[in-house]
Formats: sequence, C-alpha cells, structure tokens
Amino acid sequence: MRGEEKYRMILNAAKQVFAMEGFYNSKVSEIAREAHVADGTIYLYFKNKDDILISLFEEELTRIIRTLKTELESIDDPRDKLIKFCDNHLTIVESDRALAEVMQVELRQSNKFMREYKNKHFIAYLNIIADIVAQGQEEGIFDDGLRPELCARVIFGSLDELSTFLITAKRRRYDVHEVAVMVGKMFLNGMLKAKQPAEKDTGKG
Amino acid sequence: MRGEEKYRMILNAAKQVFAMEGFYNSKVSEIAREAHVADGTIYLYFKNKDDILISLFEEELTRIIRTLKTELESIDDPRDKLIKFCDNHLTIVESDRALAEVMQVELRQSNKFMREYKNKHFIAYLNIIADIVAQGQEEGIFDDGLRPELCARVIFGSLDELSTFLITAKRRRYDVHEVAVMVGKMFLNGMLKAKQPAEKDTGKG
Repeated sequence: MRGEEKYRMILNAAKQVFAMEGFYNSKVSEIAREAHVADGTIYLYFKNKDDILISLFEEELTRIIRTLKTELESIDDPRDKLIKFCDNHLTIVESDRALAEVMQVELRQSNKFMREYKNKHFIAYLNIIADIVAQGQEEGIFDDGLRPELCARVIFGSLDELSTFLITAKRRRYDVHEVAVMVGKMFLNGMLKAKQPAEKDTGKG
Repeated sequence: MRGEEKYRMILNAAKQVFAMEGFYNSKVSEIAREAHVADGTIYLYFKNKDDILISLFEEELTRIIRTLKTELESIDDPRDKLIKFCDNHLTIVESDRALAEVMQVELRQSNKFMREYKNKHFIAYLNIIADIVAQGQEEGIFDDGLRPELCARVIFGSLDELSTFLITAKRRRYDVHEVAVMVGKMFLNGMLKAKQPAEKDTGKG
C-alpha cells in the first residue's frame, strides 16, 4: 500500500470515527483500528488528532471545490450556476452524512480550528459564489448594487444553516434537491409574489 | 444586593470574561473577580461554567426576543418587518461585541451546548421570521410556494454567517445598517436586476 493510499484510508477512517463518537471522544487508536493500521503509523502522517481533523477538512473541501468547478464550467447562465451551487452543497450533506456530521458539528467545536486555522480553502469555496454573482452583474442579469463578497456570505450562511437543520432533523422530511431549488430561486427572484406580466393584465378583451 | 441583581452581575461578568479569554480558558474564579463576588457565591446560582454559558445565552436571547417583538408590533408591512429583523440582528452584533463573540464563537465550541441543549429560545427566535413570512403570504405579498420554516433557517443562517464575518473582520469596513438593508432587500427582491416596466419597453414610437 503506497503512502498516499494509506493517508487517505486514515482520513476516511477518521471521518467515520469522528462522526460516530464525536471529535472529543474519539481516540487515535480507534482511528488506527478502523483504518487497519498500527497506532504508530498514524503519527507518520499526522501530528495529532487536531491535525487529522484539519487535514480531513482540507482534503474533502479541495475535492468538493475541484468537482464543483468542473461542473460549473459546463454551465453558462449565472442563474443556473447559482442553483447548481445550492444543489451541490445540500446534496453532499445528504449523501455523505459522516462528512456532514464532521463539518457541521465536530469542526465547529474544535477550538484550534476556529481560532488558529487560516481558512484559505473555505475562502476559495466562498469565492465560487462571489464569482457567480460578479459574472451575473457583468452580464447585466444581477443587480449592480449587490456586493459579491457579502452575497457569498449570505448564500453560504443560508446553505450552512439548512445543512445543520437537515442533518439534525429527526426524520427525513425534505427532498434535498427541492430545498436547493427553492433556496436558489429565493435568492434569484426574492420572496415577493411574482407580478403578473403587464401584457396579461392589460390589452386583452 | 438582591439575588436577581447578583445573578445578572455574574452573567454580565461572565460575558466579558468569556469574550476576552475564550470559554475554555476562562475560570470561574475570574468571573467571580470581575463580578466582585466570592467564588462560592457563583455556585449558589450556577452548577458550573457550562451552566453559566447556557444561562447567559438564554437570558440574552429572551431579552432580545422581547424587545424585538415589541418593535415589530408597531410595524404593519411584512416587508418592513423583515428588514427590521435583519437590522436588529446585525445591530446587536455591532453594539455588543462581547455578546457577539460569546454567541458566534464560544457557544459553538461548547460540546454540551451543541449536543444536549434543547434550544427552545433559538426556535422562538426562528419563529419570528417564520411568522413574518406567513403573514406576508396571507396578505398576498410573499410567494405562496415559500416554506416559512425553511425561510427562517435561510434568513437566520445568512445573518449568522454575516455576523461571524463582521465580528472577525480585522478592520471595520461595513456599515451594519447598510448591510442589513442590503440583505433584507436581497431576500425580498432577489438578486436579479429589476426589469424595466413593460410600458417603457414596448408600445412607444
């Protein structure tokens, strides 16, 4: 087994253990057992449990960003890109519950992570949204008054809160794809009731 | 000094200490010193440090909800109510940095809080948004397809993320009131550029 492969196996095992036991209760020896490696092997790759958590976050988010960027490249319209972004975010939460549990709950509780980590991967993720907004403005589709960097926070924040809600909901009551389209359209069209097109209201009959 | 007054003084001292030192590094003895009471006095009111944090959260949020509800009662239009909600949320973050630091950073790191606390105060806060959305739907102003309970998560999540962003931003670069109005209008009108009224586009000349 090559080093890279072992590194990934340890991270994958850590994801399962963190999700099941919680970060604080997890032991490096459990991660080793889950990954079928000796305890000492883990320390060849990681300094400590915090380092495993942060590496897991970085690896997963790097992969998510790479896949998402490829998919967005095949979409032209910034409106469709925005819906795709929402759908992708919530679909990941739905499809990889262990990852979602680690990202939504465990990561937020790591003091080291919250305080010390310079979160360039997170910024890269936010910048995908900001770029979509800027593109929409350049093409004259989105409102010029919007500030792309604030829109990125607004949209990420709403998806993040929805994610926590969806993974902590006792029963599955929501279709994730439907929720993603609803929230994407809410951002595009707003909450106000659509006005009937003027042609339909006048000049007929 | 009456009991109620002492209770509030301890919570206020705890807010300052948690914000300065971080929850994990804070000691009950420091809170006692800041509140000018004996260490033992604290344990007459609270079981432990976790209990102080949760009581602080409950007291502050109860007060915020009470004040907000009174202010919203004097507003009729659900559109104005929504903007007011956004403005109130971000203004509190701006005006009480110690509280914001505790709510945005320290609280999220408390394992006990995240896992065990049945968050009825938080649900009450979310329900204020859901009620505004439902009112707007009843009055035919908001889109009927919106789900009020999901809108509440979307709007709270965006304000929450903006709050974390605003309090961790190195320099103050944003006018909180402007940001609140921007995000409120973003939810009401959406991000799409307002269309010119149809009469201006057609039928002239």
